[in-house]
Amino acid sequence: MDREPADLLAERSPSRILLSVLDGLGDVSLPELEDRTPLEEARTPVLDSLAARSELGAMVPVSPGVTPGSGPAHLALFGYDPLRYRIGRGVLSALGIGFDLRDGDLAARINFCTVDSSGVVTDRRAGRIDDGVNRELVEALSGIGIEGVELFVRTVKQHRACVIFRGEGLSDELADTDPGLVGRRPVQVEPLSPAARRSAEIVGRFVQRAKEVLSDRSPANMLLLRGFARHVSLPSMRERFALDPAAVAIYPMYKGVASLVGMKVLGVEPETLEAQVRACALALEQGHDFVFLHHKPADSAGEDGDCARKIAAIEEFDEALPSLLDLGFDVVAVTGDHSTPCPMKLHSWHPVPLLVHSENQRRGYASGFSEREALLHGALGVFPSKDLLPILLAYAGKLGRFGA
Amino acid sequence: MDREPADLLAERSPSRILLSVLDGLGDVSLPELEDRTPLEEARTPVLDSLAARSELGAMVPVSPGVTPGSGPAHLALFGYDPLRYRIGRGVLSALGIGFDLRDGDLAARINFCTVDSSGVVTDRRAGRIDDGVNRELVEALSGIGIEGVELFVRTVKQHRACVIFRGEGLSDELADTDPGLVGRRPVQVEPLSPAARRSAEIVGRFVQRAKEVLSDRSPANMLLLRGFARHVSLPSMRERFALDPAAVAIYPMYKGVASLVGMKVLGVEPETLEAQVRACALALEQGHDFVFLHHKPADSAGEDGDCARKIAAIEEFDEALPSLLDLGFDVVAVTGDHSTPCPMKLHSWHPVPLLVHSENQRRGYASGFSEREALLHGALGVFPSKDLLPILLAYAGKLGRFGA
Repeated sequence: MDREPADLLAERSPSRILLSVLDGLGDVSLPELEDRTPLEEARTPVLDSLAARSELGAMVPVSPGVTPGSGPAHLALFGYDPLRYRIGRGVLSALGIGFDLRDGDLAARINFCTVDSSGVVTDRRAGRIDDGVNRELVEALSGIGIEGVELFVRTVKQHRACVIFRGEGLSDELADTDPGLVGRRPVQVEPLSPAARRSAEIVGRFVQRAKEVLSDRSPANMLLLRGFARHVSLPSMRERFALDPAAVAIYPMYKGVASLVGMKVLGVEPETLEAQVRACALALEQGHDFVFLHHKPADSAGEDGDCARKIAAIEEFDEALPSLLDLGFDVVAVTGDHSTPCPMKLHSWHPVPLLVHSENQRRGYASGFSEREALLHGALGVFPSKDLLPILLAYAGKLGRFGA
Repeated sequence: MDREPADLLAERSPSRILLSVLDGLGDVSLPELEDRTPLEEARTPVLDSLAARSELGAMVPVSPGVTPGSGPAHLALFGYDPLRYRIGRGVLSALGIGFDLRDGDLAARINFCTVDSSGVVTDRRAGRIDDGVNRELVEALSGIGIEGVELFVRTVKQHRACVIFRGEGLSDELADTDPGLVGRRPVQVEPLSPAARRSAEIVGRFVQRAKEVLSDRSPANMLLLRGFARHVSLPSMRERFALDPAAVAIYPMYKGVASLVGMKVLGVEPETLEAQVRACALALEQGHDFVFLHHKPADSAGEDGDCARKIAAIEEFDEALPSLLDLGFDVVAVTGDHSTPCPMKLHSWHPVPLLVHSENQRRGYASGFSEREALLHGALGVFPSKDLLPILLAYAGKLGRFGA
């Protein structure tokens, strides 16, 4: 693949970058807040004061109008164009539970479901069984042996699990077995290209054995497979950008995406923002020059449509920010991976506010940190998220000159 | 060709989108208006009030500095990158008169002209003959038969007509026969590549026969051919974006471009904006979920350098806007296809103001609808026109999530 300018120009330097991501940070004007957003409403004296001494901007996660999943949204923040570097759902699912994927592994998402005596699906989620039941089923399925591959079945949550096939020459060009609707039978595993025939046979054998193993269970007496994806290693941030990156995240999904680009994933104990700040300090002590800090609560609150909780999540971050700033990073970025507007209760396409603090900036444009200030008074303008990393490298003095 | 994100993610939904295009809307600061633009000067209480409750932005029709023709400018608004989807002038001309082009047809624009006894062009527009004379000439030319192709000659207006060659293996790699200046002879039809040799012969035979047919006429005693273009079907908006689109336009050119992307072109009788509003209502009754409304007068006024008429055209639209808003569209966009600044009397490259009104927006940024507000207080920023359609789809809930 063609190398981008930052790949060609990146060089090591002792400076240190903090990329702090408030998941789902962006929002829209809320009538109940007199058309302010949660970020505008939140009491954020530290961010507001920093904004006046920083450059703001707004980022389009993938492309205009396109709502990203968490995987593509984070890849973009790490400098990986999500339209170029695609990660399948099965791979994200396996990464999300911390499974150590290897190159060539074939992963798929499992939904446990209920079928009637004629094999027709009556509940695609098997009544959302609890995690304990899920683990029993996974335990039972783990006994299945398929010739030619190693098999790993893992619990995700409720009715969701994932399966990983490890072996030579596996292909992910396979159609989902999920019929998508109740009242239909699970679909046979079909290869979408001739090269996928053997993989279809292997997965088909697994489905057949799983059917036998699950047949006497209730309500989860069958499974559906979706999102077949073969794991292909991405070039690491070290290879691309000469960085030595570390991730300080609590949720498995974000640890997974971080490890995908070669970040060292640090432990966080207990699972609090305070402990994350300590992990950031440790990352610097260990010599990392790029730290990705992931803060989840704003997104969870947005998905629940809980505006007060989203405001509280942002305020929690603002309170922790002084201790992060005290760590002595040379470049500090605060942003989101995407917007999660409370009235939508979903990820959205709306551009995400960004703050970049460093030396040698155009300061004094913004009166605070908000969507409005980022969009209207941003020295950085509106740009694709994938372009953030080169900007951070530049401020950190880690990008050489292009041409003479 | 690679599919773009919106092609992959578009899904049907009952929501309805109105794209209203005020042709040539954008302008520049006019000294006679104390440096306001016509849009700033126009009394537009409805647009101004809507702007405060909407997101504004400014769009670059093709790429920075590039002035578009009407065809590319509209294709971009319909989500077709004009740098990728090219339409030649001959094809646009044929579409503009409602000719039913088929795949592979070769079309060219005709200018009737006057030549002296030595064959030198003395008037490239033959004194702008009237449409009646034009129709007589076209009638005479329609009698010409050329072996191996079907021939269609059609009146456009005044001295302009078009010709369509239908047959196998035609190429549009042909040079114009128009010398571009009076005092020169018409240029021989020349192939621009070896593959176009046969097409050059066919067209050359037509020109020779036309010369004979026209020789005893006055003042239009010859023709010039320009803008050879072979018609290649575009993927429709239904195929690309899962839309069921309708066009409400009065001028043939815009009906033609709309039909090119698969829009149902609705009749408008009489040819008034009021009747266009009724046609929009009909489009919704017929189940269309995307309506393109084309309003021409601002562009015509701009091309005439008539600032007062341009202001009046904008005010006419503002007065009709409440009845459009009453139709219950879920997403309403108001914009132009390009700027037509009055002092230039031409299309221009200047970014075009845009207003998008929907739910779940960042509101209260703009105090009215104008170039200045769109550029300085736009929550949507400045972006290429081709990215508008994904944004409209997103607001209409017609775009799925990219990745997990």
